[in-house]
Amino acid sequence: MQTLWDHRFAQRTQRMGSSAIRELLKLTESPDIISFGGGMPAPDVFPIQEFREACERVLRDSGDFALQYGPTDGYPPLRELIVRHTARYGIEVTPENILVTSGSQQALDLLGKILINPGDHILVESPTYLGALQAWSAYGAEYVTVPMDEYGMVTDALEAALRSGPKFIYVLPNFQNPTGVTLALERRKKLIELADQYGVPIVEDDPYGQLRYEGEHLPSVVVLDGQFRNSGESCYRGNVIYLSTFSKILSPGLRLAWVVAPPEVIRKLVQAKQGADLHTSAFTQFVAYEVSRGGFLDRHIKVIRDCYGKRRDVMLAAMDGYFPPGVEWTHPEGGLFLWAILPETMNSAEVLKMALQQKVAFVPGAPFYPTGGGHNTMRINFSYSDPDKIREGIARLGRVLYEAMGEPLGIYH
Amino acid sequence: MQTLWDHRFAQRTQRMGSSAIRELLKLTESPDIISFGGGMPAPDVFPIQEFREACERVLRDSGDFALQYGPTDGYPPLRELIVRHTARYGIEVTPENILVTSGSQQALDLLGKILINPGDHILVESPTYLGALQAWSAYGAEYVTVPMDEYGMVTDALEAALRSGPKFIYVLPNFQNPTGVTLALERRKKLIELADQYGVPIVEDDPYGQLRYEGEHLPSVVVLDGQFRNSGESCYRGNVIYLSTFSKILSPGLRLAWVVAPPEVIRKLVQAKQGADLHTSAFTQFVAYEVSRGGFLDRHIKVIRDCYGKRRDVMLAAMDGYFPPGVEWTHPEGGLFLWAILPETMNSAEVLKMALQQKVAFVPGAPFYPTGGGHNTMRINFSYSDPDKIREGIARLGRVLYEAMGEPLGIYH
Repeated sequence: MQTLWDHRFAQRTQRMGSSAIRELLKLTESPDIISFGGGMPAPDVFPIQEFREACERVLRDSGDFALQYGPTDGYPPLRELIVRHTARYGIEVTPENILVTSGSQQALDLLGKILINPGDHILVESPTYLGALQAWSAYGAEYVTVPMDEYGMVTDALEAALRSGPKFIYVLPNFQNPTGVTLALERRKKLIELADQYGVPIVEDDPYGQLRYEGEHLPSVVVLDGQFRNSGESCYRGNVIYLSTFSKILSPGLRLAWVVAPPEVIRKLVQAKQGADLHTSAFTQFVAYEVSRGGFLDRHIKVIRDCYGKRRDVMLAAMDGYFPPGVEWTHPEGGLFLWAILPETMNSAEVLKMALQQKVAFVPGAPFYPTGGGHNTMRINFSYSDPDKIREGIARLGRVLYEAMGEPLGIYH
Repeated sequence: MQTLWDHRFAQRTQRMGSSAIRELLKLTESPDIISFGGGMPAPDVFPIQEFREACERVLRDSGDFALQYGPTDGYPPLRELIVRHTARYGIEVTPENILVTSGSQQALDLLGKILINPGDHILVESPTYLGALQAWSAYGAEYVTVPMDEYGMVTDALEAALRSGPKFIYVLPNFQNPTGVTLALERRKKLIELADQYGVPIVEDDPYGQLRYEGEHLPSVVVLDGQFRNSGESCYRGNVIYLSTFSKILSPGLRLAWVVAPPEVIRKLVQAKQGADLHTSAFTQFVAYEVSRGGFLDRHIKVIRDCYGKRRDVMLAAMDGYFPPGVEWTHPEGGLFLWAILPETMNSAEVLKMALQQKVAFVPGAPFYPTGGGHNTMRINFSYSDPDKIREGIARLGRVLYEAMGEPLGIYH
């Protein structure tokens, strides 16, 4: 359809390209495809009965408020619950440090809106979360990258990147999307030390930190920053903005997440949010509060850990059995994803085409590299499919990889 | 708190100032204040029982999907319901013309993101909806204004404004926020004719069009545009983007609205929405669909019309009785607001301070004028308070106005 809008799109739309992941997910919606593509929670762990009871109580007792306009910074009892919840992970703040957002994606967008001038450099891990690149590229961000290895961001390469004068550092320390890798404690400390030395603040994105299946919880960057130069006493210094979400511990369909930031940043974010969507759904905030309160959230997180931890183990065992020699993969201690690296000569986008014919899907890794590379990498989700599907899907993917590598099938086939 | 963020805010934040309305609404949250300030629906007309039943059915039958991630353009059955609903108002489109947004505020923000380059001129009514100014100023919009009178945008002044080459025209034809005024049919036709002649597309914002309390429904600008040069046959030409919302006909707490646009604009909006919040809450979309389907929405709109029509009549009668001579006001045929004009020498922001002492609130009109003016105007909401409160609040406001005008109280006091 030819319309008057055709030549009127803003210049920034040229940088906004549709997310490769979202486009790909459309291909994998067919129920006969085993998809390791999305980052979806398992519906098996949605607490549907608790939601039924919560909706009933909210509408019976507070319908007039839950269905009405609400404050831009969020439903006060939910903000207080978030304060109590984050305190269990060592993050000691007050409700004035909390903004409720419409998913973490909105937090990324609002941060872009209040912080990024066109041409600003943002320091990111490479690879990094695609949704952040998508949000910030619309505001004209350029990226300075620091490579990842099995211990997370390679902090030895950080100083060179900091010299370019980035606006902020973006880091996903726990079970990173896309690699599943966790930033080692010593590197967390090094990151804070260098950020402090260069006067560059940090955005810490932590959607999965509560979903650890083995090993000890590592203190968040925001917590370590609070202890820095403070002889072990923790207090919020405000130089780290921390993001987390209800999407992975309760339900992504609610679109509820939160930002921890100093009050003057919260004020700017609130101004931006007024223009962006006035406020996040009051109804979903009332319901999330009603479901979560009284200790349910902590009990439920244990259920999710148990479910996803088993699925991770099933997937790792299946990969050991079905994947050809020459393919390597990460061993995530938590989260939703693992990361496979094919031999240099292979292209995972080509492998995906073959995989879709065999009714199995994953996400090729290249789009996660803001400055190119990663053609031979794949992001594989282990939270969504049940163990039988995981085994079958990895078997199919193994056959595809053997075929792509031109090797005879392994003895397990 | 001094942090590293303090000097890092983007230049656009200087244009983003917090909404005067939202700041003011905080003052009026005290329950002893009668507030005509917000644009809130009456909780009396929230269909709470229907919501209880809908939540129960959604969670029982579709919990796995309603709590999961969903498509960026919206829940398909809801988009189809919107197509059927708008068709009743003469807007004949298909689901590919529909995007579900997180409230109309998000539609305004996404339109700004995909259309506005810094310095672009947007043609708006003066006064106009503050939320649009707030959304678009963040993208660097400048405003060209056309004055309003009792028949809406003064189309005789339109041609001069069009010569400045605006990117698009923004118009609220029905019961405009803030004035309550409706754009006359002949002016709607003139608007389309001139827009066509100058090749400038239109954004039609219609949150209240379904809430008419007297007179005949006038065809929307988007409908008239479809008939233009088409000998009365209606078809969607795509040059008008049409916005409406569930906020005023169901519940604002859901944050659900929709955009009607040509497919290539929808595609750009979807890209922008992926970066902004991935998608609108699947749960609220499932619930809104479940509440609305089967004819409920049309029946419920009649209930709202009846309730608000009576409140408007009560307010107009009270103003006749209590307001001093020299104050004029509009007689809206629908919507949520009326507009009062004080003598030129008066300042409604000063009147508000006196009014708050008397425990009654309204919104001063000046912020709705993008290029200045309107210091003697007031926006008064008649949907939220019940008839007794409306009478009492208008009586208080009348006393305040008499006092502000230095006149003796009228015989009704």
